[in-house]
Amino acid sequence: MHSFEELLSIFEDRLKQEKFSREPEELYSPINYTLALGGKRIRPVLTLMACDMFGGDINEALPQAIAIEMFHNFTLIHDDIMDNAPIRRGKQTVYKKWSPNIAILSGDTLFAYAYQYAQKADKDVLQDVLSVFNQTAIEVCEGQQYDLNYETRNDVSVEEYINMIRLKTAVLFGASLKIGAIIGGAKPIEADKLYSFALSIGLGFQLKDDLLDTFGDEAVFGKKPGGDILSNKKTFLYLKTLELADTKTREKLISLYNSDNKNEEEKINSVKTIFKNLNIDEITEREIDRYFDAANIDLNSLDVSVNIKAELYNLAHKMIHRDS
Amino acid sequence: MHSFEELLSIFEDRLKQEKFSREPEELYSPINYTLALGGKRIRPVLTLMACDMFGGDINEALPQAIAIEMFHNFTLIHDDIMDNAPIRRGKQTVYKKWSPNIAILSGDTLFAYAYQYAQKADKDVLQDVLSVFNQTAIEVCEGQQYDLNYETRNDVSVEEYINMIRLKTAVLFGASLKIGAIIGGAKPIEADKLYSFALSIGLGFQLKDDLLDTFGDEAVFGKKPGGDILSNKKTFLYLKTLELADTKTREKLISLYNSDNKNEEEKINSVKTIFKNLNIDEITEREIDRYFDAANIDLNSLDVSVNIKAELYNLAHKMIHRDS
Repeated sequence: MHSFEELLSIFEDRLKQEKFSREPEELYSPINYTLALGGKRIRPVLTLMACDMFGGDINEALPQAIAIEMFHNFTLIHDDIMDNAPIRRGKQTVYKKWSPNIAILSGDTLFAYAYQYAQKADKDVLQDVLSVFNQTAIEVCEGQQYDLNYETRNDVSVEEYINMIRLKTAVLFGASLKIGAIIGGAKPIEADKLYSFALSIGLGFQLKDDLLDTFGDEAVFGKKPGGDILSNKKTFLYLKTLELADTKTREKLISLYNSDNKNEEEKINSVKTIFKNLNIDEITEREIDRYFDAANIDLNSLDVSVNIKAELYNLAHKMIHRDS
Repeated sequence: MHSFEELLSIFEDRLKQEKFSREPEELYSPINYTLALGGKRIRPVLTLMACDMFGGDINEALPQAIAIEMFHNFTLIHDDIMDNAPIRRGKQTVYKKWSPNIAILSGDTLFAYAYQYAQKADKDVLQDVLSVFNQTAIEVCEGQQYDLNYETRNDVSVEEYINMIRLKTAVLFGASLKIGAIIGGAKPIEADKLYSFALSIGLGFQLKDDLLDTFGDEAVFGKKPGGDILSNKKTFLYLKTLELADTKTREKLISLYNSDNKNEEEKINSVKTIFKNLNIDEITEREIDRYFDAANIDLNSLDVSVNIKAELYNLAHKMIHRDS
């Protein structure tokens, strides 16, 4: 079985070959720009890995890996418009560098190309692959809509939040593995176990993101902690605090989030103190562990060799117990 | 063979059944709203008609007809954001009634659903159907980008304009017929002839649109003529005039288009006079006839009965030689 690094390098080489030289340039420059920005490429590598794991030819899964990565990048281009995000991966976002119109349209085009790659699957598995792909695309849109809704709602529950990140983030990890497994010839039950495994990992991954954004070590995490607090983001930490805190603390936290505090450091520290007093960081860590454990139950039930399980375990561990 | 009206009624009944009851409501309300707004439904009926024509079961083509209509409506939702268009089919556009963000996201979702319906084709023809669908989706995006580019360019040629409307408008007519033909069991060469037929009809249809917008009879066309002139749209009429006019007239037309003339009537009449002096209305009619003739060459070469040819001829005639 190939290592993550080997698969990553195979994927990157192939993606470079797929650079668009079509016209109009205004449409394809933002697409090439976005695909070249990088990112961790976890999703497409998961697709290749799942195919490999069941003895499939990874060359056959490459178009689907590209489809997954293109789909993911399409969602980023559109999300950045909706979130008014000027920077992504250290560079200007498409809507900022070009325009919202170009971001809408190049995103749409990238979505269409994602389908063009997904469709290259063998006739015998095409319908199965596309079913997963379609369902996931729809769910990711639903997740993004919930995320937008929650920005202005003050009564979001932890349960609703978990459902939102399941749709917005976790299902695409699930689809990445499941589609690779289908291409690799896995039995449906094995593909479903991998999907369930990835869902737990995806949820843990996002909670870790929430945790690192507030409590991460700047030197390791790579960005200044507190971004979510400054943008009043209703993360797991925030919502869990509202659930656990007494009335006075809850009101204080809400008023901190609703105030336009000029002193950023002060706001971050006040919110962090509330979190700390309620042990929210530890509670979040325990919740992440719970997802990691759930993932491992799926992992152990898989009908694959011990070596492959170890490889998946290491990857899951790296995704969830990361510091950056 | 079913008539256009019969197929339209079958399609409308089926589309009503497909109304979404999923959540989040913020995502699905705009989709249901858009699909219920109506429109001529020419494209999905073309799909059913092509299937019927080759002896296929129209029930099998219904999901693709829905896919085509959903795709078309997705492009309208996004185009209306890009064009700042507040009204479509007499009602508020999605971005205006809700918000640009909701228009982006409900459009994306509708695009994903279009694929979900397209994918329901029989395994044996699925790849062929999706190839047409993908290529068309990409080309429609390219056409829209050219359209946006041409808004700010002053050196657009008639040839470039024709290529733009081919991509933005005509290819979807082509795909509608071709996909229906594939589902109906047509030989590839017959499906390709239908595609070519529809391309010519689509181009003629758009030129007729340009003509009616300026020279249409308000009582019949249903809207006040001159909209394109007031929004400085580089239509076939405008571009052909620039091609044929002497320097003085050309400069006058350009200055009329670039001025913010307070008196709308005056601007419309001045531009119309220039068009008239150069016989642009007749030249456009001749160009439309040329496309109609080209379409009929394809039509006559089709391996279908005389009755079917007559039905298609009448439809093409209605689309191109319409007054509204």
